Amino acid sequence: MGRLTVRRPVRKLTTSGDLRRADTLAAEEPMEIRVGGRALAVTMRTPGNDVELAHGFLLSEGVIGDREDVLTARYCDGVDEAGRNTYNVLDLALSEGVPPPETGVERNFYTTSSCGVCGKAALDAVRLKTRFSPASSTFAIEADVLASLPDALRARQKVFAQTGGLHAAALFDSSGELLVVREDIGRHNAVDKVLGWALLEGRVPLGGVGLLVSGRASFELVQKAAMAGIPLLAAVSAPSSLAAELAEEEGISLVGFLRGESMNLYTGDFRVLT
Amino acid sequence: MGRLTVRRPVRKLTTSGDLRRADTLAAEEPMEIRVGGRALAVTMRTPGNDVELAHGFLLSEGVIGDREDVLTARYCDGVDEAGRNTYNVLDLALSEGVPPPETGVERNFYTTSSCGVCGKAALDAVRLKTRFSPASSTFAIEADVLASLPDALRARQKVFAQTGGLHAAALFDSSGELLVVREDIGRHNAVDKVLGWALLEGRVPLGGVGLLVSGRASFELVQKAAMAGIPLLAAVSAPSSLAAELAEEEGISLVGFLRGESMNLYTGDFRVLT
Repeated sequence: MGRLTVRRPVRKLTTSGDLRRADTLAAEEPMEIRVGGRALAVTMRTPGNDVELAHGFLLSEGVIGDREDVLTARYCDGVDEAGRNTYNVLDLALSEGVPPPETGVERNFYTTSSCGVCGKAALDAVRLKTRFSPASSTFAIEADVLASLPDALRARQKVFAQTGGLHAAALFDSSGELLVVREDIGRHNAVDKVLGWALLEGRVPLGGVGLLVSGRASFELVQKAAMAGIPLLAAVSAPSSLAAELAEEEGISLVGFLRGESMNLYTGDFRVLT
Repeated sequence: MGRLTVRRPVRKLTTSGDLRRADTLAAEEPMEIRVGGRALAVTMRTPGNDVELAHGFLLSEGVIGDREDVLTARYCDGVDEAGRNTYNVLDLALSEGVPPPETGVERNFYTTSSCGVCGKAALDAVRLKTRFSPASSTFAIEADVLASLPDALRARQKVFAQTGGLHAAALFDSSGELLVVREDIGRHNAVDKVLGWALLEGRVPLGGVGLLVSGRASFELVQKAAMAGIPLLAAVSAPSSLAAELAEEEGISLVGFLRGESMNLYTGDFRVLT
């Protein structure tokens, strides 16, 4: 099964010395996600929680909306040169009546003309795929509870503590409890893992929780929140312009630079109680 | 033309106050890269230096190795709903004799069996595509010069200073001079932009320079260095396991946690002079 970390020799230079020792690195391996035997995506991820990752990815892509939409998920039984199962190809079979995903580079962008790729088209594409409406959620959280979450997240980032090399994502409720924490070398994978966890737990749509991410808030992360019906996304670092636009359009509260003493409310500030 | 930043209203909560003001966000927009009219990829990027970005992307993918491999690069003349050119679709025509790229999700992974996706296969795929050999480069740099580069990079991150939301990449020579600095919402895009700049300047292969990145060093970034023939990759933050493995295999010196007082040398430490 997958390794979360890998030990390697390292030479550490400091102003006071030159030291050789063993270092712990965050593991990175490719994983291919197949649907019905057909390759849909290859993602570089930290092994572990792969079934969650695949479910979260398909939820984000608008392929599934409920755990019942997936019949089976299994690792292909391929092996590497040394005869070991690679555990890097996961094949999901969809239930009867669930349409298979489109493939191709343009699948995320609904182009309205031959050259209509733009931020607006990207927003439209998400709206067309969204099953759940975060806008109607009555979720709210006290500002001081929200402000305490990055420290709580950091305390549960076990692999980050060893490697300094992982993103994290978590779901939290209005009391500030972290329901699930996942780490990954890729920020989108960490979010897919928590969404996949929620889907497998039968908790989607996630109208009653917020999503916390350890880094920046990009368009893609807001899109994932929207697809899962999550009404609040809080990021420790900066959001992008398109992330804020999408959050506004989808009725999602977007919090950035969430850091102990302060936070920025970009959209939907009514869900943060002061 | 593309905007680097976007102004938005924000509500800033601190322990001492509640303030509404204008905030500057890093711009994010989709860009579709086409080759010969056919869509190859859509990337979420910060507008600007798009021609460099497309050239660097194609270099990283092994499609081109010289500026002469590209005949023309032009924005498609599509418009958005308001009739403005979106400047978000760039079509490149390859020169005669340059084979067009493969498309499909598996194009980066040479699968040796039906389920052979693994780190080793990913390393093999890079080796098969590499045109230039970083291993033979005699590039070297003094440790204290290398240690000074993150501060020099930060000083030139104009958009980061405004938004806190951008990755940066730079090429530097053995004297520590930064030859080019590019910023982007995506770390891979920032690297593609500096590589594209170098290609358009006729400087590829880049056997005489190092690549500096503001964040972590993933497999993908080492792959980009390898494809451009760059012998040293220095990252301000942590490398992944597969990044270190690929750097070792390709003869690239990999430096991580490069921070003023200290640095970690994972591979090829002979290029860092102490």
